[in-house]
Amino acid sequence: MTFPPNLLAGYGRYLEKGFVRYRQTHEHLAIYGQQPEVMVISCCDSRVTPEGVFNVGPGELFVVRNVANLVPPFEATDGQHGTSAAIEYAVTALHVKHIVVLGHAKCGGICAFRETVNRDTLDGNFIGRWIKLLEPAAIAMACMPVDRIDDPQLAMEYAGVRQSLKNLLTFPFVRDAVEAGNLDLHGAWFDIGSGELRTMDPDTLRFAQAGTETQQPLPVVAAE
Amino acid sequence: MTFPPNLLAGYGRYLEKGFVRYRQTHEHLAIYGQQPEVMVISCCDSRVTPEGVFNVGPGELFVVRNVANLVPPFEATDGQHGTSAAIEYAVTALHVKHIVVLGHAKCGGICAFRETVNRDTLDGNFIGRWIKLLEPAAIAMACMPVDRIDDPQLAMEYAGVRQSLKNLLTFPFVRDAVEAGNLDLHGAWFDIGSGELRTMDPDTLRFAQAGTETQQPLPVVAAE
Amino acid sequence: MTFPPNLLAGYGRYLEKGFVRYRQTHEHLAIYGQQPEVMVISCCDSRVTPEGVFNVGPGELFVVRNVANLVPPFEATDGQHGTSAAIEYAVTALHVKHIVVLGHAKCGGICAFRETVNRDTLDGNFIGRWIKLLEPAAIAMACMPVDRIDDPQLAMEYAGVRQSLKNLLTFPFVRDAVEAGNLDLHGAWFDIGSGELRTMDPDTLRFAQAGTETQQPLPVVAAE
Amino acid sequence: MTFPPNLLAGYGRYLEKGFVRYRQTHEHLAIYGQQPEVMVISCCDSRVTPEGVFNVGPGELFVVRNVANLVPPFEATDGQHGTSAAIEYAVTALHVKHIVVLGHAKCGGICAFRETVNRDTLDGNFIGRWIKLLEPAAIAMACMPVDRIDDPQLAMEYAGVRQSLKNLLTFPFVRDAVEAGNLDLHGAWFDIGSGELRTMDPDTLRFAQAGTETQQPLPVVAAE
Repeated sequence: MTFPPNLLAGYGRYLEKGFVRYRQTHEHLAIYGQQPEVMVISCCDSRVTPEGVFNVGPGELFVVRNVANLVPPFEATDGQHGTSAAIEYAVTALHVKHIVVLGHAKCGGICAFRETVNRDTLDGNFIGRWIKLLEPAAIAMACMPVDRIDDPQLAMEYAGVRQSLKNLLTFPFVRDAVEAGNLDLHGAWFDIGSGELRTMDPDTLRFAQAGTETQQPLPVVAAE
Repeated sequence: MTFPPNLLAGYGRYLEKGFVRYRQTHEHLAIYGQQPEVMVISCCDSRVTPEGVFNVGPGELFVVRNVANLVPPFEATDGQHGTSAAIEYAVTALHVKHIVVLGHAKCGGICAFRETVNRDTLDGNFIGRWIKLLEPAAIAMACMPVDRIDDPQLAMEYAGVRQSLKNLLTFPFVRDAVEAGNLDLHGAWFDIGSGELRTMDPDTLRFAQAGTETQQPLPVVAAE
Repeated sequence: MTFPPNLLAGYGRYLEKGFVRYRQTHEHLAIYGQQPEVMVISCCDSRVTPEGVFNVGPGELFVVRNVANLVPPFEATDGQHGTSAAIEYAVTALHVKHIVVLGHAKCGGICAFRETVNRDTLDGNFIGRWIKLLEPAAIAMACMPVDRIDDPQLAMEYAGVRQSLKNLLTFPFVRDAVEAGNLDLHGAWFDIGSGELRTMDPDTLRFAQAGTETQQPLPVVAAE
Repeated sequence: MTFPPNLLAGYGRYLEKGFVRYRQTHEHLAIYGQQPEVMVISCCDSRVTPEGVFNVGPGELFVVRNVANLVPPFEATDGQHGTSAAIEYAVTALHVKHIVVLGHAKCGGICAFRETVNRDTLDGNFIGRWIKLLEPAAIAMACMPVDRIDDPQLAMEYAGVRQSLKNLLTFPFVRDAVEAGNLDLHGAWFDIGSGELRTMDPDTLRFAQAGTETQQPLPVVAAE
């Protein structure tokens, strides 16, 4: 079989329009390197494309995508942590000014995590182990609910974003940058069906339609 | 401080154009879920957006993005492997038909790996440990060179894609799907400056301008 | 069965000629001990005899011979490292002035290492583990090639010698002696078929017919 | 400083005489590879050159040289055992018919081991750890003396050879080859001052001037 024809066809369209539109930007980026001001931690979900939702051009977003847009807590172990490596690179090498954790509706990872509550069959595999990162989020949600949401799926999607923001602050270099005022952490959530974007209020930790809430930087205390 | 204004502005543009264009698709995807046929493993680099390069709409690409678009080898350890979890989800839950490992020029991760040769200072951190995944690629390149390329950076970018394709076949569920003819693995490389896309010939493992080479599915033996 | 007759016969010839020629030297060495100025780290290969290639008499070369003439990096572990012990003894007890790492053509160890790239079957055994010491050499060759050599076998033979010289400098007592100007490190390579000896230029790290290149001591920075 | 001039001069003499004498042998060995029938495990000592003592030409002896000509016992650990790797290669890949452990007088390694009895200062370093391999030899010598030798240095040199022969039989592939009658193990000792060679009687485990004792293969029971 050949390379997916629809991708090659799409690439043809890209070359004619997309690339041409940004040709000079691309040439400049190739020579001088990237200097994105924003890192986005998003989901692998095919229905959520950060560059699309934020309508940005090449060079603007440094993007990590993993199942359920999760940030693991800082670990000194020898394992290979792809997401942690990307965060370290963005903060210590690229010096991004913002990190946005972008959650979304109908998240399959969140759904899978919720289903594990009644069975441990996922424990042994990669997905099962990965989404265990959501356990503290579920515990926090159960013990200290931020808001009353009848839909446990949506509530967990929000809680997952909050937990990832908390975990970000467990990285010494992230906390240092935040305390120095050089880095802001933000939470957001995208509704696949309606296209609505909700951002998290750093004070109340609640989510509201983008632009409608007063925006404050995420307090460092949120990590405690 | 507020949520990055340029992102909110970009989101405004997206709502007016991008989303409207795909409104029905989004509503359908929200209700029936995603069914992408292609998974792309790409880099976090802000200059390479898979959905952009392949000009696809919502629901078409399941995208993992990590530093240097790496696939770790299958591991039964207890660690939390985000990329492995995403691959498992794409293959066993979404049943994608294609996995494309998309490398690119000027990769900072490859560059960092090459620099570690003369100093071990990166070993202790996340980036250093993560890009150690490239070691087998470098060893293979040195011992059994596929082609003669004078630019070690480009050569390593290619070798990295080949290694990730090799590592993909170390996952039992990937190998099974490939052997059953339900999954194809592809290698590709994007040139930031010129916009050129090169795809890998599964037989020769060499890269050539997209569409110019005979396309065959990656032979399973490539993993041996 | 008896002690190999050909060895006993050879010993007879040795007594009549070889030993007689150096009788006084032997008597002196037996009484006052050895004081070799040169240590040679060579391969077990039956086709390469350091004392033969350098045509030296008894007491001149302190010789370690292992598969692929490898020097492991300094390790503080409790294991029993024969080669490291020999190096320590040569430098700290015998105070040799030169250490020569002597590689050679058609090295079976290098060949075995190259073949492991496509199969991991050697990993479990002694040879497989031992030649893993060549991995950093292959990585360095791939990332920062010193020269362009189309023959990967020869290129790896050179890279192996360079890596061993690099590893020598990871031993504190070696580095100290080198920095104090009391010890020089040299690389060399012997061609079994033609008898050609090539020595490594400490500045360019390239190999050339013995005596044809400008000779400088190996810069300590080579270890960084 | 330059490559040791005396070595370059010696190499010149070698090319004129040594190599010329064996030119055809070298050319043949380069093309068809080595097929030595004998492996010699010898000391790094500059006063003992196996190829010299046995007056053999290129391609005849596969030689391992380490401090005190020691063979470690078989170990399944992950460490890198150079001597074990060489033995494995000689027996399983080259299929040598004889392994000769060649000890010698005035062995600095044996001397260092004997000195450690009254101080543990060597424990922490490479030599100290390496020669600990002689401990079982010393224990055996104390508990079951093979012969009465007033010189403890000589007695330990003999005991060291016996222990290495015993350890050789702990390697499954060595024991199998010995039991199949495809491999013989031999002990020998060289007197630096007089040039006398003594070989070990496989039955009595005693050493006597080469050729004067009845030669029997080392009994496998010697390993128990």
